[in-house]
Amino acid sequence: MKTMTLDAPKVSAPPMPMGMRPAESRVRTRRAERPTAAQRVLSVLDVFDQEHLVLTLSEISRRAGLSLSTTHRLVGELKEWGALDRRDDGRYTIGLRVLELGSLEPQGLRLRTVALPYLSDLHSAIAADVMLSVRDGTDIVYVESLRSRRGAPVLTRFGGRWPMHATATGQVLLAHAPLDVQHEVLDGDLRRFTAKTCTDGDDLRRRLGDIRSAGYTIVDEAITTGAVAIAVPVFGQADRVVSAIGATIRRGSCPPESVLPALSMAARAISRRLGGGRS
Amino acid sequence: MKTMTLDAPKVSAPPMPMGMRPAESRVRTRRAERPTAAQRVLSVLDVFDQEHLVLTLSEISRRAGLSLSTTHRLVGELKEWGALDRRDDGRYTIGLRVLELGSLEPQGLRLRTVALPYLSDLHSAIAADVMLSVRDGTDIVYVESLRSRRGAPVLTRFGGRWPMHATATGQVLLAHAPLDVQHEVLDGDLRRFTAKTCTDGDDLRRRLGDIRSAGYTIVDEAITTGAVAIAVPVFGQADRVVSAIGATIRRGSCPPESVLPALSMAARAISRRLGGGRS
Repeated sequence: MKTMTLDAPKVSAPPMPMGMRPAESRVRTRRAERPTAAQRVLSVLDVFDQEHLVLTLSEISRRAGLSLSTTHRLVGELKEWGALDRRDDGRYTIGLRVLELGSLEPQGLRLRTVALPYLSDLHSAIAADVMLSVRDGTDIVYVESLRSRRGAPVLTRFGGRWPMHATATGQVLLAHAPLDVQHEVLDGDLRRFTAKTCTDGDDLRRRLGDIRSAGYTIVDEAITTGAVAIAVPVFGQADRVVSAIGATIRRGSCPPESVLPALSMAARAISRRLGGGRS
Repeated sequence: MKTMTLDAPKVSAPPMPMGMRPAESRVRTRRAERPTAAQRVLSVLDVFDQEHLVLTLSEISRRAGLSLSTTHRLVGELKEWGALDRRDDGRYTIGLRVLELGSLEPQGLRLRTVALPYLSDLHSAIAADVMLSVRDGTDIVYVESLRSRRGAPVLTRFGGRWPMHATATGQVLLAHAPLDVQHEVLDGDLRRFTAKTCTDGDDLRRRLGDIRSAGYTIVDEAITTGAVAIAVPVFGQADRVVSAIGATIRRGSCPPESVLPALSMAARAISRRLGGGRS
C-alpha cells in the first residue's frame, strides 16, 4: 500500500496573518509518518487561505511541502475536478466546485435557509453588520454574513474561521459548549488581537458564566479597534445552542445594548423555526 | 506508482434530482483508465449533493464505486482534515472546512465583498429574492443569495449550480460568454424543467441577442411555476461581464419590469466598484 514515491514533507509553518487564522494544515499534524495519497491531495488545498488566494505552481509546491512534479500532477487532477481554477496568468485559485460543495455543509445550509429572512430583516432594521456562526471544534465559522455600507470595518466574512474567545458569537457558543471544549479553549493559548482581547482563562471563565445568565455578550474592540460586537444564542431542538447571531457596530455610533432587542427577536424567531426557543 | 489496491469503478449514474443538477462526478469522466488516488479522494466528496446531504459509509462506498475498506480509509482521512463531518448517528456530511475553503474562491469572495451592501439595499427596496451568480464552464453558480420571507418559492440558494439556459442570471451570462461557450450550450442538451423552459437552440440564440441589446432578461416560470426572474449584467474591468444580479418575484405580485430600475442601479453601483460600468 505504501509504495508510491513519497515526497519529504518540508513542514514550514505558514505566517499567521493578523485577524485571520490561517488554514492550519490539519494534514501536517501527523507528519511523523509519511503522508498518504489523500493527505497530499488535501495538503495542496490547504495552502490556500485568506492571505494566499492566488498561487503559482511553485508556491503551492513550496507551501505544501511537495515536489514540483507531484504538485503538478495533483494540481492537474484537482483542476480537472473543479477544486482548483487556473487563471489566465497561469496561477491557481480555489474553484467554484469547492464553494458549491461547501454550501452543502448541513448546519450552514439549514441555518441559512431558516435564518436568512430574519437576518435580512434585522440587517435592515439596525445599522450594523449581521452574522451567523457555528462552532467547529474550538473555532467558530461564519456561515452567513450580511455587510452594510454603514457597518464597522471588521474582518468578519462568510466562511471566515476565528477563535472563540475573541469574537462575540464565539463567546456565546463557548459559553454553551461541552465542558471538554471549554477546558480546551480556556487552558489553551488565548491569542491577543488588541489590548482589549480577553486572554486570561479565569476572566474568560467568569465571562462565560455571565453570558449564560445574561443571555448575551458584548465584545468591545477585542479584534478590531473601533468595532463593538454583540451576540446572542440560537436554540435548536432540545434547547441546545446550535448557533449564535452577532451584530457589529462602529464604536460610539450607538449604545451596543440598543441593538439587543432586535437581535434577540431575530434569534427567538430563528430558534422557534428550528424547534428550539424556550418559553 | 500504480501498485495500490484499486477498486473496480462501479459507475452508476446518480438520479437527476429535479431542479438541482447533481454533483456530476467529474472524476468519472476518464474512467476508462483506473482512477488515481486523487480521483478516488475526490469521488468520495462527489457523492454529496443537495439530495444527498447525509450519507452512511456504505452509501458513500456504493455511490463512489469504491470498496468499503477503501471508503472507510478515505472517509477517515477526509474527516481528520475536516472535509467530512461524522454525526452522532455515525453518518457523514460535508464539513465546515469545505465551506471555509470554498469561501476563498476569488470571484465569489470579491463579488460578495463589493456587492453585498448594494444587494442588501436592493433586497430591502424590492419585495424579492436577490441573487448574484458567476459562470463556471457552461453552468452558473450562485455566489450570493438573499432570501426574503415575501419571495417566490424558488430553489435558488447560495452555492447552487444551474444550467445557463433556464435561469435569468444564466441567460445574461450566456449572452456575454465567449462564443465557444455559447455554441457548447446552444448545441447541447437544453434541459426542460417546466413547459415554459426555452429548450430550442435557435430560440435561445435569438434571445441572447435581445439580452445584449436590451441589457436585461425576464425569465417566466422556466424552472419553478409561480416564479418570474429578472437579471442584469455586472461589468468588471475592460467592461467585461463578470457576474449577473437577479431578482425573483412571485408571478403576478408586480410587473417584473418594475424591479428593473432598482436592479440596474445596484448593478451599476457594483460595476463601478469593480472598475467596469460604461458611461
